Amino acid sequence: MIVQKYGGTSVGNVERIRAVARRVAATRGEGHQLVVVVSAMAGETNRLLALARELAVQPSERETDALVASGEQVSAALLALALQDLGVPATSYLGHQVQISTDSSFGRARIKNIDRKRLVETIGSGAVAVVAGFQGVDPDNNITTLGRGGSDTTGVALAAALGADLCEIFTDVEGVFTADPRIVPGARKLDRITYDEMLELASLGAKVLQIRSVEFAKRYHVPVHVRSSFNDARGTLVVEEETGMEDVLVSGVAHDRDQAKITLLQVPDRPGLAARIFGPIAESGIVVDMIIQNASDAGTTDVTFTVPRGDQDEAVAMVKARQEELGAKGIATDSRVAKVSIVGLGMRSHAGVAARMFDVLAAEGINIQMISTSEIKISVVIDEKYVELAVRALHGAFISEANP
Amino acid sequence: MIVQKYGGTSVGNVERIRAVARRVAATRGEGHQLVVVVSAMAGETNRLLALARELAVQPSERETDALVASGEQVSAALLALALQDLGVPATSYLGHQVQISTDSSFGRARIKNIDRKRLVETIGSGAVAVVAGFQGVDPDNNITTLGRGGSDTTGVALAAALGADLCEIFTDVEGVFTADPRIVPGARKLDRITYDEMLELASLGAKVLQIRSVEFAKRYHVPVHVRSSFNDARGTLVVEEETGMEDVLVSGVAHDRDQAKITLLQVPDRPGLAARIFGPIAESGIVVDMIIQNASDAGTTDVTFTVPRGDQDEAVAMVKARQEELGAKGIATDSRVAKVSIVGLGMRSHAGVAARMFDVLAAEGINIQMISTSEIKISVVIDEKYVELAVRALHGAFISEANP
Repeated sequence: MIVQKYGGTSVGNVERIRAVARRVAATRGEGHQLVVVVSAMAGETNRLLALARELAVQPSERETDALVASGEQVSAALLALALQDLGVPATSYLGHQVQISTDSSFGRARIKNIDRKRLVETIGSGAVAVVAGFQGVDPDNNITTLGRGGSDTTGVALAAALGADLCEIFTDVEGVFTADPRIVPGARKLDRITYDEMLELASLGAKVLQIRSVEFAKRYHVPVHVRSSFNDARGTLVVEEETGMEDVLVSGVAHDRDQAKITLLQVPDRPGLAARIFGPIAESGIVVDMIIQNASDAGTTDVTFTVPRGDQDEAVAMVKARQEELGAKGIATDSRVAKVSIVGLGMRSHAGVAARMFDVLAAEGINIQMISTSEIKISVVIDEKYVELAVRALHGAFISEANP
Repeated sequence: MIVQKYGGTSVGNVERIRAVARRVAATRGEGHQLVVVVSAMAGETNRLLALARELAVQPSERETDALVASGEQVSAALLALALQDLGVPATSYLGHQVQISTDSSFGRARIKNIDRKRLVETIGSGAVAVVAGFQGVDPDNNITTLGRGGSDTTGVALAAALGADLCEIFTDVEGVFTADPRIVPGARKLDRITYDEMLELASLGAKVLQIRSVEFAKRYHVPVHVRSSFNDARGTLVVEEETGMEDVLVSGVAHDRDQAKITLLQVPDRPGLAARIFGPIAESGIVVDMIIQNASDAGTTDVTFTVPRGDQDEAVAMVKARQEELGAKGIATDSRVAKVSIVGLGMRSHAGVAARMFDVLAAEGINIQMISTSEIKISVVIDEKYVELAVRALHGAFISEANP
C-alpha cells in the first residue's frame, strides 16, 4: 500500500492533473493499493486569501480555513474525474468525510486522529482514494487547515494511519539536496537522509517538506520518498538511521533569509528575565528561533533573539511596550541577517566540526553574529549579504571535498 | 426571523459581496434574526464544470457535485468575512455542517431533513448564519447538489425548517413579471402571486425561482419575497391564495424555447403503447413534457411528445432503436418549436379562456401544433419564430387590456 502526495504545481492545470492521473494509474497497475493526497491547484490558495484580505482587514481564521479548504476540494474531485476517465475507479474524500480530526487551531491545526474505515473500504474494493490535503475538522465539525505545506502532513499521517509501506511526496524538485542548487552548482541530490537530519533541514529553511510531516514520519516509522512529479527519477528517501550513515559528517548545508534579529541592550540581569521577555511573545504566536544572552560584569546583559521577518515589527512593538518594566537601555534591530547551518549525523561522534565551520567562515572574512548548536547541526547568524558565499564555502569544505 | 438568499450575480465580485453584507447588516439592524443563503459567485459553477468536462468525457455525478459545491463554500466564507469586517458577528456553514440531509441523487438531490440545532444556536447568539446554498449530504456523507437554482430551495427549506417569517430571494430581476419584459415592453411586475401560479410559471420557462423551492414554500406555507439585490424596491410576494385573487383571469404569459418535438408516425395502436414508448425514456432521466396521441381510423396513431432540446438526440436515438418493435412507420423531429403559456387562478371559474387564447393566436396567423392544459394554465406549442408575436398578443389580450 502506497500513499502518494502531489503538490500544487503538480496539479496546477488540467494537463498536469491528467499527467498525475496517468502516474497514479501506472502505480496501481503495478499492483499497489493507493491513496492519493492532493494540494490545491498552484496559485488557488493565494487567490482565495487575496479575496479574503480584500473583504476583511483581519479575516477570521475560521472563515479563512473554510475558504481556502475549497481549493483542495476542487483538485481532489478533478483528479478523481481524470482517473475515472482513464478507467480507474476513484473516489474523492474531504477532511470531514475521512474524518481527519484535528484540534481547533485554525490555520495551523494538528491532526489528532484519522478514521481509516472509508479509505480501507475504498482501496479494498480496488479503487483509488483521492483525499483533499491540508484540511481536517475540529470536534465541532468546523473546517480546519494544517498550515502551509500541510498536505505533506496529510499524506504522511494517512500513511501512518493506514500502515502504508511508503509515502511518496511528489513535488517540483527532484529530492533533498546537499544545498540549494541555485546557490551551489555542485550540490548533489541525497539518496537517503534520516528523519532527524530532515527535521533539522526542514526547520533550517529547506522548504522541501513541512516539518510536521517529518515528525509524523519519524514517530510512526513511515518511509518517505521525496521526488519530482515531472519525471521518473529516484528522489530522496527519508528513513530511519541505518548502519554506516554516520560516516557522512555533514549531509547538507541549509540557509534561511527569513530572519530578523532583535537585541535588548543592557538589561538588568535578574532571575526570570527570559520568561518575562519571551512569555508574551510566545503567547502572541510568534516563533522565536535563536536566543543569546551575554552577561556582563556590570550586572546587565544584552539579550538577542531572532524571529521571522514578517513578525519583526510586532515583536519589536511588544518588547518596546515593556522596555521600561524590563529596564533595558535600548532596543536594536537588524533585518539584514540570515541563518546558515550544517546538518549531519556524523557530528555526534566527530569533535571539531564547529571549530572547522568557524574557520571556513573566518577564512572568507564572514563575521559570526550568533551561534546555535544541536546534536546534529550547527547554525550561525551572519550578515545576509554573505549568505551565498558562506553556503558555497561550507558546501565545498564539508561535502564536495569530503566526497569528491 | 428572516431567511435571505442571494444569487450568483448578487455575490459576483468583492464589491457586490460587500453590498450584500451591508444589506444583511441593515436587516439585522432592524431587529431581525437572520440566516443568509448564498449561491456561488457568478460564473464559478460553469468554470468548474468546464474543468470537469476537460478532464472526463462523462464526469461522474458524485465527483461533479463535490467539485461544484466548492463554489458556494467560497462565497459563504467570503460573505461571513465581509460581515465580520462590518462588525456583524457571522459564521458560515456548509451543507454537511448544518446537516442538510438529502437523498443520493447527485446533481438533483432532494432535501430530506435539516438539523436546525447549529443555526438556532448561531442566530440565538445574535450572529448571522451564512449557509452555502445548493448543497447537502447524503446518508453516506457524500456531498450532493440540488440542481440549477438549488440555492432557492436551500433558502426556502431553511425558512421552513426554522419557522422563519419570510424568505427573501434576492436576484438580478425585480420580481415576477406578467411576461418577459425583453419581449413585452409593457410587462408589469406582479405585487403578489399564489404558489400554484408560481409553480406553473416556473415549470413553463420563467426562470425566476427553482420549481422545487416553490413546492417547498407551498407545502410549508413559507411566504417568499422575490426582489432585486441591486435596489430596495418591493418585489413580488409569493403567497397562499387569498380572497379576490381569482378576479384576475390571467396573471402571466410564459414562454420556453428549450423545446424539441418528436413524432412517431403511424404506430399500430395497441394497449400499453405509451408505456412502451415512454418507460425507457423516463428511466434514462429525460423529462418528457407534453404528449399527444391522435388515433386514426386505420388502427394506427401518431404519437408526438416534447423534450428539452439538449435531450433531443438521446430521445430520438431511443425511439429509433425501438422503432421496429413499436411498428412505427417513421420518426419526425422538429427542434424549432417553442411553448407559450398563460397562467391564472381565474381560469378555474371562467370558461372560454382557452377558446379566446386560440382566437388571439389565430388572428395573428399562428398555427397551434400541440395543446396542454391544467386547472390554471393553458400551454401551446408553436413554431419558434412566432414566440415574441404570440407572447405580445396574449399579453395584450389578457393582461394589458384587462388591467389598462
